Amino acid sequence: MNASFDLRLGILARRYRAGDATPRRLVARLRERALSLNDEYHAFIHLLSLEELEPYLAALEGRHPDDLPLYGIPFAIKDSIDLAAVPTTAACPAFAYTPKVSATIVRQLVELGAIPLGKTNLDQFGTGVNGTRSPYGECRNSVHPDYPAGGSSSGSALAVALGLSSFALGTDVGGSGRVPAALNNLVGLKTSRGIISDAGHVPICRSLQCITYFTSTAVEASRLLALTALAAPDPADAYSRANPAWNDGKDFEATPKAFRFGLPQKPEFMGCAESAAIFARTVAHLQAIGGTPVEIDFAPFLETTRLLFGGPWLAERYSGSLGAFMENNPEALLPVIREVLAPAREITGVATFRALHRLQELKAQCDRLMTGLDCVLTPAYPRPATLAELHAEPIQRNLDLGYYSSFINLLDYAAVAVPAGFFQNGLPSGVTLFGRAFTDQYLLSLAHGLQKETRLPLIGGNVPGK
Amino acid sequence: MNASFDLRLGILARRYRAGDATPRRLVARLRERALSLNDEYHAFIHLLSLEELEPYLAALEGRHPDDLPLYGIPFAIKDSIDLAAVPTTAACPAFAYTPKVSATIVRQLVELGAIPLGKTNLDQFGTGVNGTRSPYGECRNSVHPDYPAGGSSSGSALAVALGLSSFALGTDVGGSGRVPAALNNLVGLKTSRGIISDAGHVPICRSLQCITYFTSTAVEASRLLALTALAAPDPADAYSRANPAWNDGKDFEATPKAFRFGLPQKPEFMGCAESAAIFARTVAHLQAIGGTPVEIDFAPFLETTRLLFGGPWLAERYSGSLGAFMENNPEALLPVIREVLAPAREITGVATFRALHRLQELKAQCDRLMTGLDCVLTPAYPRPATLAELHAEPIQRNLDLGYYSSFINLLDYAAVAVPAGFFQNGLPSGVTLFGRAFTDQYLLSLAHGLQKETRLPLIGGNVPGK
Repeated sequence: MNASFDLRLGILARRYRAGDATPRRLVARLRERALSLNDEYHAFIHLLSLEELEPYLAALEGRHPDDLPLYGIPFAIKDSIDLAAVPTTAACPAFAYTPKVSATIVRQLVELGAIPLGKTNLDQFGTGVNGTRSPYGECRNSVHPDYPAGGSSSGSALAVALGLSSFALGTDVGGSGRVPAALNNLVGLKTSRGIISDAGHVPICRSLQCITYFTSTAVEASRLLALTALAAPDPADAYSRANPAWNDGKDFEATPKAFRFGLPQKPEFMGCAESAAIFARTVAHLQAIGGTPVEIDFAPFLETTRLLFGGPWLAERYSGSLGAFMENNPEALLPVIREVLAPAREITGVATFRALHRLQELKAQCDRLMTGLDCVLTPAYPRPATLAELHAEPIQRNLDLGYYSSFINLLDYAAVAVPAGFFQNGLPSGVTLFGRAFTDQYLLSLAHGLQKETRLPLIGGNVPGK
Repeated sequence: MNASFDLRLGILARRYRAGDATPRRLVARLRERALSLNDEYHAFIHLLSLEELEPYLAALEGRHPDDLPLYGIPFAIKDSIDLAAVPTTAACPAFAYTPKVSATIVRQLVELGAIPLGKTNLDQFGTGVNGTRSPYGECRNSVHPDYPAGGSSSGSALAVALGLSSFALGTDVGGSGRVPAALNNLVGLKTSRGIISDAGHVPICRSLQCITYFTSTAVEASRLLALTALAAPDPADAYSRANPAWNDGKDFEATPKAFRFGLPQKPEFMGCAESAAIFARTVAHLQAIGGTPVEIDFAPFLETTRLLFGGPWLAERYSGSLGAFMENNPEALLPVIREVLAPAREITGVATFRALHRLQELKAQCDRLMTGLDCVLTPAYPRPATLAELHAEPIQRNLDLGYYSSFINLLDYAAVAVPAGFFQNGLPSGVTLFGRAFTDQYLLSLAHGLQKETRLPLIGGNVPGK
């Protein structure tokens, strides 16, 4: 890939300062390129027209790259997050509405100088982690055409992986911000619940849903988080919360100290030997940068995942304004989404409290397992699924992809997906580092250390770190 | 009342050290006295026999009063908390079981030298705040025979108020540890959720229920909390949690610094002018000890109360082993309890998540209202209800008594009920100080300051503080 498509924050800032690029020229070119790729990848549901881009570009006129931390940085927005005056569809045309104001996080980014390029495709209503569940087209993988992009934040991952934006906003309930990162050689930061404002994000599973960042590198995710983590709760988001460490970047260590990381006693790869080999290499890489592995019982984590998909949290998807829409317009949903959500209305309050109690017990167990550990390492997904496999078994293959990601939000942990290598066919693989709430910047330090150690190629063929 | 019935921790310790009393003699006398009063007050469901008391007394033989922080201190236990080898009934004979081991908190207290005197009466399954809902007899007020003791921890409050034990363990979901304190001239400490182990307490409303202390004075409650607050989560109680301040007593200030306290803009007394006058005097007392009153909008707190009784948390009462019992033995429940719990099984998961989301919004609002305040002051109950009034309107009068207490646990606050004066007919009145989670010891400092300022008579006719 041409180096001119290296859109990393630092690289782009240097090019702007050197006068090698202007936001207006860059965005016009990225827009053209996105248009030309969209029939193939279906990454965007809506690309901003030049007219729609104009106010964002005009706001930068007369400003210098040094004035704004994200001056001229192009980014993409998952289409379940509001951008003012552009429809939000959540990948369901009948649901679309046009918000007057942008989501808090979008407004923050724009005020910092970033430029929204478009709204990206997703598994309908964020329901899925594979990227095939959209009436706006299937999102195929950025590297290998036989595989999916992952989801539900499929288009956001593609926007970064295809060199169309520096970073992208995704969301994550059960893996939507991590699985597509891993499948496309990206960093996917699933922040601690509530430290980035969720105001202006379609309420899908309110108590769990988080805004996420897709970037090429952990350093960029760290920078974005430091710029946008809430210093105090957002009055517009009841689930936002005070962030004790503020995650202002101080916890980010360019070279982490010696640390102890947990890993599953018997990691599950669903028969995929290549996945196992990549994971083993990653364990060795973490050891090389000062990590001591500690095997832990993974049963309570996995039982938590089963709680999310088998139980009461399906009812949460019906509990807000979105639920009213789905109840009144069942025909507007893709059949697979209807099938997944079908049990939701039969769930009782008693069953819901039973699940909440069981979750509390599982969280206590998982917290105890993590005592004395700085983080836990897992595969990002056990084994990849081809598009053909997903078409044949859409529900089971989707569950398989989320095997290592779906417990994180229920347990109130932070997580970051990090590129870990490539299958022989070129498909990217990834791992996840997770830890207690508010350890986001620390986890990004380890992700950065891992990227420096693995020196895997990035978008544009660059090698990370220095 | 005879001064020999002054059972305050410090007083009793001095008497033991001086050789003026022995645990064996004291407990035997208290037991006799409790037996003689029980037909009138129905405070105890089970008083320990001399044989059952023996192991606790024997454990103190050869120990010196200085060896154990609670050497020979008699206490009573609400009968929804386990004491080894004694039936736990939760005021429902058909539900009774005999636990092999004591609740964690009971074990802690016994290891510190305290002596359990008996299991106390309660509103069946902790459902109610008035004290009349028990097949073991109605708990009348310790001072005025026309009034109830308050509930659901009725017998525990009576045990202290009648001079039968130094302190007592109660529990609290929606006011059960505070309303009876206020009605009997006691301090009722509703600790922050999870800082005292709940293991061995009948799971009634697991996500909310707390162990509470009844004492004559805030100083004693502070001491007991410092001795028994968890330093780390109890593995036997998934809802226990690390207590950042440890509440080890360091936050207790004998003379609190200047502080700001919220109070309801339009406090509700349900037409009771005497309640209003007592509350106004308490506001003046708090000002006298350095407090600045700040009126706050109380609507979100009151809406939270309506959530607890009108909605999904009823379903929580059916979600555990107790729920299975209630479902299989509806005839074992008092009719009023059946009526209160009737809607529980009809509640849906969707409605439950709606209520959880609304609670989150209300908590965010309440937290904002409390910004810059050190605590909030309310009446403990708006106006008293006579036994006759409770018999006539059992559900509404019960709700009225809980008006100022039922939102606290849903909002994850700490609270302490403090004596505030007496009605002309002699009935005790009280106020509640509440604050954010983990402010327990600080709230007790203010309660202590208030007790020193008001110098109200205590059990035994003593005057608090020095």
